[in-house]
Amino acid sequence: MISQRTDTTSLANALRAGSRAALARAITLVESRRADHQAAARELVQALLPQTGSAIRVGITGSPGVGKSTTIDALGMYLVGQGHKVAVLAVDPSSARTGGSILGDKTRMARLSHCEQAFIRPSPSSGTLGGVAAKTREAMLLCEATGFDVILVETVGIGQSETAVCDMTDFFLALMLPGGGDELQGIKKGLVELADMIAINKADGDNIKRANITAADYRGALHLLSPRSEHWHPPVVTYSAISGTGIAELWQKVLDHRKAMIASGEFASRRREQQVKWMWTMLEQRLMARLRTDPSIRTKVKKLETEVAEGRVTPALAAEQLAELLN
Amino acid sequence: MISQRTDTTSLANALRAGSRAALARAITLVESRRADHQAAARELVQALLPQTGSAIRVGITGSPGVGKSTTIDALGMYLVGQGHKVAVLAVDPSSARTGGSILGDKTRMARLSHCEQAFIRPSPSSGTLGGVAAKTREAMLLCEATGFDVILVETVGIGQSETAVCDMTDFFLALMLPGGGDELQGIKKGLVELADMIAINKADGDNIKRANITAADYRGALHLLSPRSEHWHPPVVTYSAISGTGIAELWQKVLDHRKAMIASGEFASRRREQQVKWMWTMLEQRLMARLRTDPSIRTKVKKLETEVAEGRVTPALAAEQLAELLN
Repeated sequence: MISQRTDTTSLANALRAGSRAALARAITLVESRRADHQAAARELVQALLPQTGSAIRVGITGSPGVGKSTTIDALGMYLVGQGHKVAVLAVDPSSARTGGSILGDKTRMARLSHCEQAFIRPSPSSGTLGGVAAKTREAMLLCEATGFDVILVETVGIGQSETAVCDMTDFFLALMLPGGGDELQGIKKGLVELADMIAINKADGDNIKRANITAADYRGALHLLSPRSEHWHPPVVTYSAISGTGIAELWQKVLDHRKAMIASGEFASRRREQQVKWMWTMLEQRLMARLRTDPSIRTKVKKLETEVAEGRVTPALAAEQLAELLN
Repeated sequence: MISQRTDTTSLANALRAGSRAALARAITLVESRRADHQAAARELVQALLPQTGSAIRVGITGSPGVGKSTTIDALGMYLVGQGHKVAVLAVDPSSARTGGSILGDKTRMARLSHCEQAFIRPSPSSGTLGGVAAKTREAMLLCEATGFDVILVETVGIGQSETAVCDMTDFFLALMLPGGGDELQGIKKGLVELADMIAINKADGDNIKRANITAADYRGALHLLSPRSEHWHPPVVTYSAISGTGIAELWQKVLDHRKAMIASGEFASRRREQQVKWMWTMLEQRLMARLRTDPSIRTKVKKLETEVAEGRVTPALAAEQLAELLN
C-alpha cells in the first residue's frame, strides 16, 4: 500500500460512482480486524458520510421457518420493480459458530441474488454481537453511499440481536406464521416493544383463514399495549411471500410509517438518537476490548466473574479490580 | 476517623446485630460521593456479603395515581403480620430534580413508617439512573445483612428505571388501575417484558366489576405473548390496597413464583446473572465517570455528541476521539 489516503479516496470515489465491486471491498475493509484497516475504514466512512442517510432502513426478524429469505426475495424484487436499489445485510452473531451466515446460501434468495439492482452481503462472522452490529451499521452506510436506497437488515430472532437491528433501522418488521388454536405461537415479549409491524406470512391457499384469525388475535393483544409513538399503532398484516399477495400492501405500511414519523419529527429525532447511541456503544466496545482480548487479563476477568456469580465478591469490589486491570 | 477499618468492622457488627440506626448510617456511607467513604462502603458490603442473599426481593412499579404507596403500606403490614421484617427502598432518578423522593413523604405509608419491623429509605437523590440503581442495590444488601427478609423496591414507571429495578429483584410486580371501555390504559410495552405479575388495584366497591373485566382483557393479551420462563406465566390479579382484599393472594403468587423458580434452577441462575451484570455495569460507570464529570472533557463530549447527532462525524470516529480523551 503506497498511500492509504489515496486508496481510501479512490475507494470512496468508486463507491460514489456506484461500483458494487468497490462496495464489496469497502465492506471487507470495515470487517477487517487489522488496526491499519480499521483506521482506513473509519476514514472511508467519514469521507462518505455526506452521501449517507437517505435510504429507507428496514429491520426484519422472524424465527427459523417463518420464510425470512423468501420474504426478502419477494420484497426485494418488488422494490427493484419499483425502481429501487436494494441492499440486504444481516446481523447474526451466531454465524461464526454455526459455520455459515444465514445469508451465506444465496440460493435462498434465488431471484434477488441474480439481480443487478440488489446487493446481498452475509453477516460479519466474527466477534461479539456488538462487533457484528457495528460492522453491519458501517456496511449500511457504505451501501447508502453506493446508491442503494432501501436497506433490508435481516436478523435471527435470538436475544439482543433484534434490539441491535432495531437500533440501526427506521422500521422494524416482525414476521410470524399463521397459528391454529393451541398451536398459536406467542409473540416474544421483547419483540412487542420493538416491532413497528407484525406480518403473517404464508397467508395462501388453505392458510388464509387461519392467517386472518391469527392477525385478529395479535391485533387484539397489541391493542392493549401502549404504542411507542402516538403517531403509529403497529399494524398486523397478512401476506404470502410465495404468491406475492400482500407484499405491495406491506411495503405501503413502511412508507406510511415513514411519512407519519417525518411529519411528527420522530424520524429525525430517532436517527439522531441512534447515532449518538452508536457512538457510546462503540466507545464501550473499545474500552472493553482489552478485557476480552488480552489472554492474561481474560483469565482474571473470568475468575472475578465466577466469584461475583457465586456471591463471594461484591460487584462493586470486582468492578474496582477490573478497572485496575485496565490501567 | 482514627481507623477506617475498625469503623467498618464495628459498623458491620452493628448491622449483623440488627441495628436500624447503624443500617441508616451504612446506607448514608454507600450514598456518599467521597472517595474514602466509597472505599469504606465497598469494604463494608464485601464484609457483609455472607449475610446477604436470602431475602425475598420484589420490585414494584406503577404510574402515579395507581396507589403504589398505599399498596406497599398494606403489603408491608401484611408481611410484618406474617413475621417478616420488611425494608422498602426506591429507585427514582428524578427525585433530585423534583426536589424530593417519592418516598420522602413517609406519611404516604402511614402504618408501615411507624412499624418497628419495617425500614423505609427514600431513593438516593443524586446522579444518573446507573448511580442511583447501584446505591439502591448496595442498600438492599445492607438491609439483608441487618435481618430484613423481604425487600420491596419501588420505582416510578419512567424509562429505564423499571429495568434497573427488575435487574436487582427476584419478582417484578406491575400495578395497574381498572379501566372502563375506551379508558382502558395500555400496558407499557417495556413493562410486558419485565412483569412477573400484573395486579389491578382499587378492586373495591363499584370498581370490582370493572377491575375483573380489565384483568380478563390483560390476561387475554398476555396469553398471546411468550412467557419469559416456561415455568411461570405472569398472572393477572385484582386487589384493594384500601380494604386489604387480595393482598394475601397477591403475596401467595410471589411465593408460588419463588418456589417454581427455585425448583427449575432459574432462581439461582437469575441471581448469578444479575450479580455479573452489576459488576459490568459498575465498571462501565467507573470508566464513563470522567467523561461526565471533568468539565473540560464534558464540553468536548457535548460537542462530539452534537456532531454525531447532526451526521457530521461518524460514531466510529467520535468514539475514537472519546477514547483519546480518556487517555
